Amino acid sequence: MSESLSFGDLRREVLAANLRIPEAGLATLTWGNVSGVDRDAGVFVIKPSGVSYADLSAEDLVVVSLEDGRVVEGHLKPSTDTETHRCLYRAFPHIGGVTHTHSTHAVAFAQARRPIPVLGTTHADTFNGPVPVTEDLTAEQCARDYEYNTGQVIVALLEGDARRAEEVPGALVSRHGPFTWGATATASLENAIVCEAVAEMALHTLALYAPGGHPEPPRHLLDRHFTRKHGPDAYYGNPAPAAVR
Amino acid sequence: MSESLSFGDLRREVLAANLRIPEAGLATLTWGNVSGVDRDAGVFVIKPSGVSYADLSAEDLVVVSLEDGRVVEGHLKPSTDTETHRCLYRAFPHIGGVTHTHSTHAVAFAQARRPIPVLGTTHADTFNGPVPVTEDLTAEQCARDYEYNTGQVIVALLEGDARRAEEVPGALVSRHGPFTWGATATASLENAIVCEAVAEMALHTLALYAPGGHPEPPRHLLDRHFTRKHGPDAYYGNPAPAAVR
Amino acid sequence: MSESLSFGDLRREVLAANLRIPEAGLATLTWGNVSGVDRDAGVFVIKPSGVSYADLSAEDLVVVSLEDGRVVEGHLKPSTDTETHRCLYRAFPHIGGVTHTHSTHAVAFAQARRPIPVLGTTHADTFNGPVPVTEDLTAEQCARDYEYNTGQVIVALLEGDARRAEEVPGALVSRHGPFTWGATATASLENAIVCEAVAEMALHTLALYAPGGHPEPPRHLLDRHFTRKHGPDAYYGNPAPAAVR
Amino acid sequence: MSESLSFGDLRREVLAANLRIPEAGLATLTWGNVSGVDRDAGVFVIKPSGVSYADLSAEDLVVVSLEDGRVVEGHLKPSTDTETHRCLYRAFPHIGGVTHTHSTHAVAFAQARRPIPVLGTTHADTFNGPVPVTEDLTAEQCARDYEYNTGQVIVALLEGDARRAEEVPGALVSRHGPFTWGATATASLENAIVCEAVAEMALHTLALYAPGGHPEPPRHLLDRHFTRKHGPDAYYGNPAPAAVR
Repeated sequence: MSESLSFGDLRREVLAANLRIPEAGLATLTWGNVSGVDRDAGVFVIKPSGVSYADLSAEDLVVVSLEDGRVVEGHLKPSTDTETHRCLYRAFPHIGGVTHTHSTHAVAFAQARRPIPVLGTTHADTFNGPVPVTEDLTAEQCARDYEYNTGQVIVALLEGDARRAEEVPGALVSRHGPFTWGATATASLENAIVCEAVAEMALHTLALYAPGGHPEPPRHLLDRHFTRKHGPDAYYGNPAPAAVR
Repeated sequence: MSESLSFGDLRREVLAANLRIPEAGLATLTWGNVSGVDRDAGVFVIKPSGVSYADLSAEDLVVVSLEDGRVVEGHLKPSTDTETHRCLYRAFPHIGGVTHTHSTHAVAFAQARRPIPVLGTTHADTFNGPVPVTEDLTAEQCARDYEYNTGQVIVALLEGDARRAEEVPGALVSRHGPFTWGATATASLENAIVCEAVAEMALHTLALYAPGGHPEPPRHLLDRHFTRKHGPDAYYGNPAPAAVR
Repeated sequence: MSESLSFGDLRREVLAANLRIPEAGLATLTWGNVSGVDRDAGVFVIKPSGVSYADLSAEDLVVVSLEDGRVVEGHLKPSTDTETHRCLYRAFPHIGGVTHTHSTHAVAFAQARRPIPVLGTTHADTFNGPVPVTEDLTAEQCARDYEYNTGQVIVALLEGDARRAEEVPGALVSRHGPFTWGATATASLENAIVCEAVAEMALHTLALYAPGGHPEPPRHLLDRHFTRKHGPDAYYGNPAPAAVR
Repeated sequence: MSESLSFGDLRREVLAANLRIPEAGLATLTWGNVSGVDRDAGVFVIKPSGVSYADLSAEDLVVVSLEDGRVVEGHLKPSTDTETHRCLYRAFPHIGGVTHTHSTHAVAFAQARRPIPVLGTTHADTFNGPVPVTEDLTAEQCARDYEYNTGQVIVALLEGDARRAEEVPGALVSRHGPFTWGATATASLENAIVCEAVAEMALHTLALYAPGGHPEPPRHLLDRHFTRKHGPDAYYGNPAPAAVR
């Protein structure tokens, strides 16, 4: 990448996170996109529309204004989902990255309009509650500013509750698929990976339930797992190695 | 490839599209084939019968007459499905490529004789309606010109409606599997990839539906997605990089 | 491989076929084995027991007597399934190779004691009828010569009908898994790949069937597909490239 | 690895076993961990917490005291699951390795609180009985020493019966996932691979059962398979090649 390119570190992180979409088996063709934000500069960096992962370079990423959605830098059109990302960044000031995929099992829950239920610790490690499903967009919401409105139905679902958005860092857009977010572009991508994994596990678990009874997992177990990894008492993990530069 | 080989560009595109069949996980053994047409020359280029993808080269591809199905160029027999491709090229003058696979989930719908329903935007991005299933071929249709008749039951399904064939670029042959088409060989292959992806998503979605109720997705949502990518108001994607030469 | 090693060509083919088991996703750990026979020499060559595919070489393969099952050549113990292979070679004089795997979906049918039904052309291209399931072995059959008796329940199933064994080149051993065979080691391995593929397709097809009705595919369609590839009127495929030497 | 590093052979084995978790498709992100014990030295070696497999080296592994769980050697925090491993080593003196994963199908059984039933020989080759599910941990067990208590519910399940732990080398922690063990770190990892494979096969088998009837596999068949591979009359396998050095 040219040294003079602006937002170099952010571009590198967003590029790496986008390339993990196909690596993690979340992508068909060019579907899926990750963005990362620079709040001080008032911009976010996002994948261009319809470019294959194999061809993607940091220069191809598009820099977009948080304020009005205009392209600040870039020779390509940004992802068609750009306005959804922008809406989420504006509603949730604590997030640093957003990921959208059409991963198979998360899409199946979105299409069936079923939240992904909390069935075990794998889910609770990342999502402190079910991954919810939005309302269908109305004809009016589809006719105009469709992509921004896609963000709005997610925000409505969380009632603008930033804490809830932090504890459940993702949602399923009805009949469409998952959007996830996180403190960074990388974190949003990893939440997309977890969302797909727990969707697949939930699909199989539901198939295995004995008819009649499947009590919820005990709340104390789920809390334990979420707080092992998140918040002031977290004790999971080690300091990351020196960041990608 | 020898410089003097005819239809060099088309051969290269058809070869590349064929090699994407196993890459995309759509193939078992040598199953599956892609062709591309040169309408001016009145021929199409297709995979030879029963050759493994690892061994396939542009020279092995077979050039076949659109008019009568005879081999115009090639040292190998063309795919046994060649006459099905020829039938589709003749019925739908707007198409430039055809793909046939035995991809797992699309075959399951074909075997169950269920159209792949439109359950969300992933489907609507590519197929503006369910992927339909043909009638069973009759004993007469099987006894003689079986492969050409396989094309005929597809054409019958679409009632020769070229616009419908353009908006729903694929069909499931009953008890057999998917045929997809597109403006180019590459486009037909990508439609085969989408067909398999939406079949898998649909299988899981149907398993997740609550008994009793699964209303259709709202039409305005599906239309929005199809027209984002197709037709005069499309705004998805970027210009392709310089074509393979 | 040392030039002086006996049965060099057969060893090379059997090695290559064994290595395709993990490549084709049919293996967990060291499970699965392929053998090939030399009828003139009265021996077959088979994978050693419990050796990982990554470590396997042609020298490790074991040469076993068709007559009495004794090791003719080799520094390792042959597969524990060797006696099953030997039983099949003795019962079906037309076969040249045998493959056994624990591939996921074929095992599921074996465990459920359901034959893999003929639901479409993918199946009919290779198996001219359902892939049948054997009887459970009796306590006596388990107590003594267990592995040879495993072959015997397969032979019993086909009633020693060599033609049926040729047209349906495989069977599921009850609660165990698939054995397939063919004219060569390679053919038996490819039949194992098809067996797994059609088992997976069948599993999904059965899940998609509307309750109440799923008529059989028409016999004329299935016949057409089997005879396209097998017997005097076959027209599928091209001559193989020069054999591996 | 530095020559002077202590427990070098054990570290190398534990590292190799950990790297097989993602290779075998058992891992999402950094989930999963393998440990191996040195009983004479009174320590075990385990994966550090939250480190990605791609970055893992033998130096990163953590040496932990069997006696009190303190880190004896290492610059990183050990896996959060370390105390569960320690509990198992203390309860079952015959085991040399422990593996924990969140593999998809084993987790589905754990989440549905269903033991993985013995449906065929693939299961019986490794597990001489169903893979059982623990009780849910109580609020008290979650509040304090959660991870050690996770080991305790496994031990309770096996009633401290060392022989049973040897014949069924794994268990599902309710709503959580599988823990497996074995004579070595490698063996525990291979048991985790088998646990996932048989869980997937069981899921599909249960879907294929005809309503009403699915008699158990005959005991003599299952015994035959378990004793082919385990105990004094085992005849499966060959001596391992020279150990990794």
